[in-house]
Amino acid sequence: MLTVQDALIRLQKFWTDRGCMVVQPFNTEVGAGTMNPATVMRVLGPEPWRVAYVEPSVRPDDSRYGENPNRLQTHTQFQVILKPDPGNPQELYLESLEALGIDIRAHDVRFVEDNWQQPAIGAWGLGWEVWLDGMEVTQFTYFQQVGGQNLDPVSVELTYGIERIMMAQQGVSHFKDMQYAPGLTYGEVFGQSEYEMSRYYLDDADIGANQDLFEHYTTEAQRLIDARLPVPAWTYVLKSSHAFNVLDARGAVSTTERAKSFSLMRRLAREVGQLWVERREELDFPLLKADLGQIQVGSAVMPPRPEEPEAPEAASLPTDAQDFALEIGVEELPPHVVGQAIDQVRQALTDGLAATRLTHGAIEVVGTPRRIVATVAGLSAREPDAETLRKGPKVSAAYDGEGNPTKAGEGFARGQKVAVEDLERAEFDGVEHVAVRISEQGRDVLEVMSALVADVVGSLRADKNMRWSDPQLSYSRPIRWLVALWGETVVPAQVSGLRAGRTTYVRRTDATPLVRVDDAAGLRNTLETHGLVLDPAKRRELVVEQATELARGVGGTVDVEAEAALVDEITNLVEEPRGILGSFGPKYLELPEQILTTVMRKHQRYLPVRDESGALMPHFVTMTNGEVDEDLVRAGNESVLRARYEDAAFFFDSDLKVPLADLRSGISKLTFEDRIGSMADRADRIRDVATALAADVELDADERSTLARAGELAKFDLSSQMVVELSSLAGTMAREYASRAGEPAAVAEALWQMELPRSTGDALPDSTPGALLALADRFDLLAAMFAIGAKPTGSSDPFALRRAALGVVNILRAQPALASITVERGLTAAADRLKQQGVDVSDESVESATEFVVGRFGQALRDEGVPVGLVNAVQALADAPGTAEQALRDIQQLAGDPQLAPTVEAVQRITRIVPAETAPTYDRALLASDAEDALAVYVEELPDHARDGLPAWLPDAHRLVAPLTTFFDDVLVMDPDEQVRAARLGLLQTIVDRAPAGIDWKALDSAL
Amino acid sequence: MLTVQDALIRLQKFWTDRGCMVVQPFNTEVGAGTMNPATVMRVLGPEPWRVAYVEPSVRPDDSRYGENPNRLQTHTQFQVILKPDPGNPQELYLESLEALGIDIRAHDVRFVEDNWQQPAIGAWGLGWEVWLDGMEVTQFTYFQQVGGQNLDPVSVELTYGIERIMMAQQGVSHFKDMQYAPGLTYGEVFGQSEYEMSRYYLDDADIGANQDLFEHYTTEAQRLIDARLPVPAWTYVLKSSHAFNVLDARGAVSTTERAKSFSLMRRLAREVGQLWVERREELDFPLLKADLGQIQVGSAVMPPRPEEPEAPEAASLPTDAQDFALEIGVEELPPHVVGQAIDQVRQALTDGLAATRLTHGAIEVVGTPRRIVATVAGLSAREPDAETLRKGPKVSAAYDGEGNPTKAGEGFARGQKVAVEDLERAEFDGVEHVAVRISEQGRDVLEVMSALVADVVGSLRADKNMRWSDPQLSYSRPIRWLVALWGETVVPAQVSGLRAGRTTYVRRTDATPLVRVDDAAGLRNTLETHGLVLDPAKRRELVVEQATELARGVGGTVDVEAEAALVDEITNLVEEPRGILGSFGPKYLELPEQILTTVMRKHQRYLPVRDESGALMPHFVTMTNGEVDEDLVRAGNESVLRARYEDAAFFFDSDLKVPLADLRSGISKLTFEDRIGSMADRADRIRDVATALAADVELDADERSTLARAGELAKFDLSSQMVVELSSLAGTMAREYASRAGEPAAVAEALWQMELPRSTGDALPDSTPGALLALADRFDLLAAMFAIGAKPTGSSDPFALRRAALGVVNILRAQPALASITVERGLTAAADRLKQQGVDVSDESVESATEFVVGRFGQALRDEGVPVGLVNAVQALADAPGTAEQALRDIQQLAGDPQLAPTVEAVQRITRIVPAETAPTYDRALLASDAEDALAVYVEELPDHARDGLPAWLPDAHRLVAPLTTFFDDVLVMDPDEQVRAARLGLLQTIVDRAPAGIDWKALDSAL
Repeated sequence: MLTVQDALIRLQKFWTDRGCMVVQPFNTEVGAGTMNPATVMRVLGPEPWRVAYVEPSVRPDDSRYGENPNRLQTHTQFQVILKPDPGNPQELYLESLEALGIDIRAHDVRFVEDNWQQPAIGAWGLGWEVWLDGMEVTQFTYFQQVGGQNLDPVSVELTYGIERIMMAQQGVSHFKDMQYAPGLTYGEVFGQSEYEMSRYYLDDADIGANQDLFEHYTTEAQRLIDARLPVPAWTYVLKSSHAFNVLDARGAVSTTERAKSFSLMRRLAREVGQLWVERREELDFPLLKADLGQIQVGSAVMPPRPEEPEAPEAASLPTDAQDFALEIGVEELPPHVVGQAIDQVRQALTDGLAATRLTHGAIEVVGTPRRIVATVAGLSAREPDAETLRKGPKVSAAYDGEGNPTKAGEGFARGQKVAVEDLERAEFDGVEHVAVRISEQGRDVLEVMSALVADVVGSLRADKNMRWSDPQLSYSRPIRWLVALWGETVVPAQVSGLRAGRTTYVRRTDATPLVRVDDAAGLRNTLETHGLVLDPAKRRELVVEQATELARGVGGTVDVEAEAALVDEITNLVEEPRGILGSFGPKYLELPEQILTTVMRKHQRYLPVRDESGALMPHFVTMTNGEVDEDLVRAGNESVLRARYEDAAFFFDSDLKVPLADLRSGISKLTFEDRIGSMADRADRIRDVATALAADVELDADERSTLARAGELAKFDLSSQMVVELSSLAGTMAREYASRAGEPAAVAEALWQMELPRSTGDALPDSTPGALLALADRFDLLAAMFAIGAKPTGSSDPFALRRAALGVVNILRAQPALASITVERGLTAAADRLKQQGVDVSDESVESATEFVVGRFGQALRDEGVPVGLVNAVQALADAPGTAEQALRDIQQLAGDPQLAPTVEAVQRITRIVPAETAPTYDRALLASDAEDALAVYVEELPDHARDGLPAWLPDAHRLVAPLTTFFDDVLVMDPDEQVRAARLGLLQTIVDRAPAGIDWKALDSAL
Repeated sequence: MLTVQDALIRLQKFWTDRGCMVVQPFNTEVGAGTMNPATVMRVLGPEPWRVAYVEPSVRPDDSRYGENPNRLQTHTQFQVILKPDPGNPQELYLESLEALGIDIRAHDVRFVEDNWQQPAIGAWGLGWEVWLDGMEVTQFTYFQQVGGQNLDPVSVELTYGIERIMMAQQGVSHFKDMQYAPGLTYGEVFGQSEYEMSRYYLDDADIGANQDLFEHYTTEAQRLIDARLPVPAWTYVLKSSHAFNVLDARGAVSTTERAKSFSLMRRLAREVGQLWVERREELDFPLLKADLGQIQVGSAVMPPRPEEPEAPEAASLPTDAQDFALEIGVEELPPHVVGQAIDQVRQALTDGLAATRLTHGAIEVVGTPRRIVATVAGLSAREPDAETLRKGPKVSAAYDGEGNPTKAGEGFARGQKVAVEDLERAEFDGVEHVAVRISEQGRDVLEVMSALVADVVGSLRADKNMRWSDPQLSYSRPIRWLVALWGETVVPAQVSGLRAGRTTYVRRTDATPLVRVDDAAGLRNTLETHGLVLDPAKRRELVVEQATELARGVGGTVDVEAEAALVDEITNLVEEPRGILGSFGPKYLELPEQILTTVMRKHQRYLPVRDESGALMPHFVTMTNGEVDEDLVRAGNESVLRARYEDAAFFFDSDLKVPLADLRSGISKLTFEDRIGSMADRADRIRDVATALAADVELDADERSTLARAGELAKFDLSSQMVVELSSLAGTMAREYASRAGEPAAVAEALWQMELPRSTGDALPDSTPGALLALADRFDLLAAMFAIGAKPTGSSDPFALRRAALGVVNILRAQPALASITVERGLTAAADRLKQQGVDVSDESVESATEFVVGRFGQALRDEGVPVGLVNAVQALADAPGTAEQALRDIQQLAGDPQLAPTVEAVQRITRIVPAETAPTYDRALLASDAEDALAVYVEELPDHARDGLPAWLPDAHRLVAPLTTFFDDVLVMDPDEQVRAARLGLLQTIVDRAPAGIDWKALDSAL
């Protein structure tokens, strides 16, 4: 059996054989191999670097006393840095798995999008999690920035998770059971340390001491930066980071402290990184002169790299039209990029060909995560020659009265390199100009397509783009090869470092992964012969079919409609979907469904299987990428899922043993923000604010008692292990645990609803107690943060106040029962409660918060596609979003009513003329003319609809339209006699005053 | 070429192939691989453990900005722990060198005594530095204690110094030039870090911050010990140790702080160690149940281990006398133990044989560091049978008057298990007793010698003894095999785990290291045939001859008399001395001779070569252990010496660039002790105290100016790099640097002499200014330390106050010119000066210090072998050691004078009778008898010798002996008449009073 230490030695050997240097783990605690200066410093600047090392990585947060089978406070990373990117890092990596005895043909090895970032050191990169039968075993990243600096050259980082790989390889389900060395298990070697260090990190670390240490470390780091010593400075950045992690594991870091500490550490990391590069430059970048040699690629596949543009073969080129085929070979694209890429290529080819004079048939573009394949039917061999007239000055300007060329005429001829005599005359847009006749020779198809292919490839862009070893290209993932054929002929396209050829690259695990393609027509065929399903629609069909079939095999179904997004994602995760049905222990079905499905969908991309009643069955469907050893892969995936469920079950069981009251008091240990107290303080405030708001709302006795009890329990689940672990389950677990503890269903539901909405588009609370708590939660957060000056800025919103504000708006919009609650009222209640606790809340901060929330109303509507005009029409009502919402709905409901537009127009006509401050009173006696009188009669009959909605008002108001029109036609409102004028204005204002309040008539008029 | 990383990988492979586990370097800074818990914890308790790992070891003190070719703040250790001792760790180690490509037959590999200790963690062990051609490449230790706990089983620790080994292997002279990995030098990989970390440790570390860190770390360690968590506690002990080292490198640790911090860290380490074992015990010592298997010894030699006692062969045993031979095979004994071992074995054999009835010829014992070989000529085959009479009660007690046995008689017979009738009668010491005749059968030689050999081996002891894998034995180094032969027959001796056999073990590098010995007579012959020179005298002769010869080859000599101690040491470092002449660059001869010879003798055990004038030549002689590749070994040794001299030259040159005044002011940065100021304060005090003492002494003008100038410069060399590096050169460098700076020779000499004596037996200052400064130095130290309560305890004397006191005593004893300086006077002067500086010095502390110093006088004499009686005789004078010394010399000088004893006896007879407080006056008139009168006449003529020495007094006093005798014969001193009695006593007291003061006559009398 391969022991853990053997694995480390083999990896060391594998990478040193390929020309990597070995260094030692860093001698201060690091959270990851990345933090070792052998990575984080050396990837900066232009010097080459290749290194491989073991890094025991310390994550205090992952402490589990050695009890959790899969989680350790110190786990072993094996870290590799290849700088520059050798061109085939994936292939090298796969070989290294083989060096560990992993048969990559039998297993399902996949590169699953992962956008790595480490804000604490100003670093990010694009790459993948590498999955081995569903388990993440390696982080594979092309570093783009570190310390806030762009990296050039780009480094490839491989981080192997040794424990995960070896648990799977040895087939054990607890890390302690791995054979670490001959005769010794992992537990025998590291078990005591896991227990004791967990004790330290979770229970025993002195908080004050670690806070002081953090202070000292950061101060020392800054001093050393000032002294221009990046190496020792970095050790102190690392030490501060560890101290921070210890404090965090002890639950001693509030949200503000976290933001402050991160910002400090990020700044220090940036400065250290900059300083490192400066210092290396002062030393003249010594490694640029070192003789590292090339990486030893050995037998790893290298993507096709045609050495020279193949001979143009011009002499023998066919003259008739041929099919054209293009393959853009990439490393695994993120699923959502595949479709975009297909569209981009189709568009670029279509537009590009349209701009040529080549004739062609259908353009088809398909693709997988590893290739975009385009075909153009019957593409002509040459453009026909063509003549065009190039327009010069008007004839009148080109020649003087005597017909002699003017300076303008001569200048044009000179510019076009023709004699003045050769200028022709032609009509352009009906005016006669001089012109030059230019004959364009048609280009041959190779010339045209070479340029077009270069353009198509070079202009590919995704939402996030990266750089790799190519000198100029930038895309979602590296583009590694091109096939471009016209008939049998290679189109000698070249873009940056890539040359097109006729060799394609099928599955990496194929016996012969590089395959020659004879002609354009054969490209898709060749690929499909190798099992690749190029058409996404076909792949999707295959996914659905297989999933359905497999589920049926166990008497279940896969709800492919409900899982549409997941099916889409899976479709673009593989080139050849092959379904495997896996199972898990039925006992896990006792866990709340949301836990199970979250893990399946989000973490594993498994399709859940349900029975007829829609209940989960203990099965799942996963799609592998082509042929594998099904039993092996099934077993692997099952064991990953088991491990995850085991984790969840552990937390769940532990949590269930704790009374709700204890969980609730546990949140007093969670500091929310220094100045505004603990999470328990916050929960108390939420309860009180919800109660205060409830006074304005009609509640029945049940609702009142639900609100009271849910208020007492508010947020209790934040101290549960499950939520500490999976924060997205906050609320979900509250409902679950409350319900299991025997709380009334309404209470459990209210606890869940108070967390809604968690994101844009999420459900909203639909019970009044739930909505009140949800509002109170958000009002408290907003009032508190504005009070302490932590309001969001353009780029930064660490407390997610925008989301909170949007939540307030949307809850109030959705809950007519709460229409009486205005934003200002809610924030004032929250502010009052904060003041009781001794927090200093200024009136300005409440105002400012109110304005901020009200501003979200418009944003919400615009995001939903409501026309800006309608939004503006009700914006003035937004302090009461429920009311505003109703007004909006009224407008939308009346939109087809022919009365509406003229009535609104009439009213807005009034508002245009009548100053806003005009009083709605008039001296009837002064309204003497017929038109005045007629209108006044109507106005007298007009009920006051100021508090009504538009539907109630419209029929009454519409009757005014005609007399009002007559009025405006016949009467000059602005009579020179001031009293007359006042009476007329007062009459008109009365009309406005009796119309529904808060509507912006002008905005509404233009929107209709 | 083998790169550094290759070497690490090879060692890793070598040791894992043998069943060691690999772990990672520790993730906090450690000073040595020993400190990794994989060593320091795992060697505790009964569990087995085998581990090998790389440990980058951080020594802030060794920071040299990467400039020093041989010294790095972080060097790479490769650490191996074998627990339990596998029985042949040396052989395994040698194989590991071969795995690194080192031909151990061509190189000179030696095991040179090294007694490792690490007081900071309460650890010690015995073992060796392993030398490769004169360079220390590995520390090899049998751990005996860690954390203050005895280790059982004992662990073997191997610590390879990777940089040293690889610099030698790659033949480079600067660490930066080593190939670290293909295409990369060590400097390219680690150079910048060496520079920057050096900057941090030497210049930029914030002292306050590191002091705070130390506080926090130790506090946290203590808390975790209290929480019973040894693992995290240990990380904090390590962190505190590193913080301490940083402070130390910054020169921010005073002597007191050092003592305090060490004591704290030692205590914490002990507690962590104890706690670790307790915790392991609570866990039931899990590794006792793990299946580690045996170590894979592979092809490494295993010392002879006869499986069974060889068949007794009794039937065929010869009946005539045979030679007997014994070999006790050991791992390299320390040189000084070899001779002791030979003596012990000779004594034990001689005594042991004497207690048997075997007859034998000459007993010869010889030995080398690896074996003690004893031979006994013509040892008889059996003891003759013998009869003895066992004595019973006297006949008169055994029988009653009637001849019947008494109870006593019966009891004796019963006790001896014979009938009463069988009792015989025999005369013992002229008295007739009953007796029993007992016949003892002679034992055969194998039986006798088995027991004797076991006894001889089991009773071997050295000054420091250790334990190893043997269950019971304990000795200076492990005893690994026994050969015991009587004629051709194996003597089946067994002692603990060792059995005697007939296989010996010659040089480890011999083609056939295990050799069968046919018979006793052949043992020495066999060994000598293999080149081993067993007789130390012969080896010494060989060393001298070869050294002399080799020196002659370059026209030089080796002063074998002056180097006698070193020659003795070398003689017992090897089994077969083979001289090699090496050379070094003549430019190093510009360095002060003491530096050169210190390095040669103390560090390298090289014999210096001198020319006719006695001046050093650029050559040395080293002795290898048997045949080697001379050129290789010479080159290796030369390069070691060059590196050491290069170091020294670097410091020397740097120091010479600094003016003396700057060096002198530099010592103000050296804190000596918080409460008594900096080293500069101390030097100022020394100057002033020396000046004050000079007032009591006659000095000429030159001496006064010498004292003044030397006082100004006192201790300046402590801030020189050379002394910081090699503190044993304090004083030596002062003289050197002062002299080179143009100071008068006498000043330079005084600066040197003020440091004398540095140890027991060291030279004493022979100039008065030097002696005054030396005294002032020690008076200041003593007065200061007693003032702050830091006086030595039984087990602890961190400031070496005993040595200082002894220095005071010996200087004053040796310098008659300073006789007027008493201890009290000196300490009072020092105390006064301390008070000027504001130090609170109590009278009690001065008294206590005085008593302490005076107490050393007797100790000094006793240590020199002066009989206790003589010491006591002059002890009362010891406050003035010069005077006391003179008195002692007088006594010794007069020892042969026949007048002395009777005179002293006479005086002491008086002191016995006359009460001490008696006044030396008498009424002459009352002394009327002849005897009285005669004595009085003599007394009247007796000059007052109270201030004289004995020689002046004796002739006068001796004349009193006769009259005094008569006086005592004839006169009853204690006359009933009080006046008469008073006169007689007064007369006698006058004699005492006129005798030299301070002599204890009674003590002197008994000593003579």
